[in-house]
Amino acid sequence: MRVAPAGNHLARHARLRAALADADLSALLITSLPNISYLTGLFASAASLIVGPDELRLIIDGRYRGAAQDRQRDLPGLALVLVPPSGSFEESIAAELGALGARTGFEAAHVTVRQHRDIVRRLPKADRELDLCATEGLVEGLRSVKDAWELGRLREGAERLSDAAKCILPKVLAGRSERGLAEIIVAELRRAGFDKPAFDTIVASGPHSALPHHRAGDRLLADGDLVVLDFGGTLDGYSVDLSRTVAVGKPGVRERELFDHVAEAQESAYLAIRPGTSAETVDEIARCVLEGAGLGEAFCHGTGHGLGLEVHERPRLGRRRADRADEVLQAGMVFTLEPGAYLAGWGGVRIEDDVVVTEDKAEWLTDVPRHL
Amino acid sequence: MRVAPAGNHLARHARLRAALADADLSALLITSLPNISYLTGLFASAASLIVGPDELRLIIDGRYRGAAQDRQRDLPGLALVLVPPSGSFEESIAAELGALGARTGFEAAHVTVRQHRDIVRRLPKADRELDLCATEGLVEGLRSVKDAWELGRLREGAERLSDAAKCILPKVLAGRSERGLAEIIVAELRRAGFDKPAFDTIVASGPHSALPHHRAGDRLLADGDLVVLDFGGTLDGYSVDLSRTVAVGKPGVRERELFDHVAEAQESAYLAIRPGTSAETVDEIARCVLEGAGLGEAFCHGTGHGLGLEVHERPRLGRRRADRADEVLQAGMVFTLEPGAYLAGWGGVRIEDDVVVTEDKAEWLTDVPRHL
Repeated sequence: MRVAPAGNHLARHARLRAALADADLSALLITSLPNISYLTGLFASAASLIVGPDELRLIIDGRYRGAAQDRQRDLPGLALVLVPPSGSFEESIAAELGALGARTGFEAAHVTVRQHRDIVRRLPKADRELDLCATEGLVEGLRSVKDAWELGRLREGAERLSDAAKCILPKVLAGRSERGLAEIIVAELRRAGFDKPAFDTIVASGPHSALPHHRAGDRLLADGDLVVLDFGGTLDGYSVDLSRTVAVGKPGVRERELFDHVAEAQESAYLAIRPGTSAETVDEIARCVLEGAGLGEAFCHGTGHGLGLEVHERPRLGRRRADRADEVLQAGMVFTLEPGAYLAGWGGVRIEDDVVVTEDKAEWLTDVPRHL
Repeated sequence: MRVAPAGNHLARHARLRAALADADLSALLITSLPNISYLTGLFASAASLIVGPDELRLIIDGRYRGAAQDRQRDLPGLALVLVPPSGSFEESIAAELGALGARTGFEAAHVTVRQHRDIVRRLPKADRELDLCATEGLVEGLRSVKDAWELGRLREGAERLSDAAKCILPKVLAGRSERGLAEIIVAELRRAGFDKPAFDTIVASGPHSALPHHRAGDRLLADGDLVVLDFGGTLDGYSVDLSRTVAVGKPGVRERELFDHVAEAQESAYLAIRPGTSAETVDEIARCVLEGAGLGEAFCHGTGHGLGLEVHERPRLGRRRADRADEVLQAGMVFTLEPGAYLAGWGGVRIEDDVVVTEDKAEWLTDVPRHL
């Protein structure tokens, strides 16, 4: 697995420390594992990280000691804290925070009520009165704009995914089971060099295609079916994601119309992308196209989601919400564009590609013919 | 995908309501997705559930409407609440809790500080003063003892996994890459009928075998290597898990000794299992065997973990901890036994099998020869 050079990590640390200073914090407790991978290059199933003014303290248990020591050799300013065999992460975190004595934030969206209680009650009394400060999305905000190394990984992933898709689409044939087709897709992802599928592959045929998150079952593909395929791969920790809808046999008029409306929604959304526009506006444009075709109700999810160390991350291209500020698009953001329309009991269409925001517009990262 | 019969689900609801009554609660907000799958048979990437005195209210967004309606047809007492397209789960949860007006618990280990704040501030003022009550492990406690349907799934999974292992082990050959071997394992899991691998397959060869959670990289297997394989599969939502350590070529004396000590630790732990013994005691016994061989430091993780809808669940077979009560083993619990010993820079051994606690002892679920 390739990991970003130390220089990229150090630049990320500097950007985070600037964001902390803006929030009047001198340290941040990080418990989101993708955020920890982003800042350290370590991919662990359990870890915490404290970003202080001078160094990063990575808290791990014995299982990841070797992997963390490898990262430490590569990355200046990384210190390791080992959770003792009979101890807990919360104990080690509280001890480190107490010693740091700085005004510290925690990630409110990644700390459970129980963890919070277990940490706070172990803090030295003076610190407990100060309490920890709830923060939101500090690292996620940085992650939403990719650096050159990350863009390299995502471009390579999107190319590999496009090549895999070109092998997969001709195999959507009557008589195959959804599950059999899902197995073909997973094998092609592996052949394309991905470390693993990015999520459980979706093969939704016939009436199942009206269920946006149907997985893959025993149903056999039949002539006249619409089949929604949604699959992705993870390469060096970065995920890419693609959907195509295929007609088995000759598509009917209604199928073609539905497909054309969804394709138009995707193209219109794409053309609206530029730095400074909001993600919500891009969603609104896709939604308007489908509403104009009487398919407003049939489009029951968002237009897209950011891609990176998580397969769903910022920016979220969804409806504007009263309780959240709009997310302004910036050059270097990478996300999916995936409008869909689903008619219960009959069938559905989704078309999904990955794009990157450039200095003045967007660029497709995936490249697979779009037709039924 | 097979789902437990409605009768099993109703029995689970009855057991949960009894546990709620013991905790002086009349309702429970459930946000853990495996807990929701356990109680409803729905496998969704986003959902919440409120178990009230008379019914279960399943809160979902449009993506899972169809799947949730299917479950509703099968399961009496299940009501659906759809999160509006421009709304949030927290809004819908607060509205439902306000209408219920009951003394309600929430899962402190599965609600983030941010979700908690977003729910509480939307509650009607009277309820807000009551607040929600933090609970822990109510559903996980039920889940740790499997019902007959679940045991059927886990037995079938363990048989399939054992068959797959017998095909995989002869393929551990010099010259193969770790990654190539991991691909063979994933293909065999698919061939064995699993819906997906239960986790990222571990192939750790030579010095990598000293890293308990090494994944699979470009290193080529060489004569004299110890190779730790750790893989599992998920069938109908239930995961099974197995590890074997294989010597490439003729194993040396030190390799054999290490292997024999770990095998002895596993066997001793197995023989100690019976209803009424604690999980911590079983861990202690495995640990004593390895400590006696001077390998106490080399055994840097727990002896095992529960298996079910999660690949790591209760019971946890680890060191006794001051801040937690021991977990008493009960008939119907299913878990791994996986002692290991890891010598940094040199290599390691792990042997892992799955067992079920019976009325008076334990029974192996996996059945694969144990030798280097």
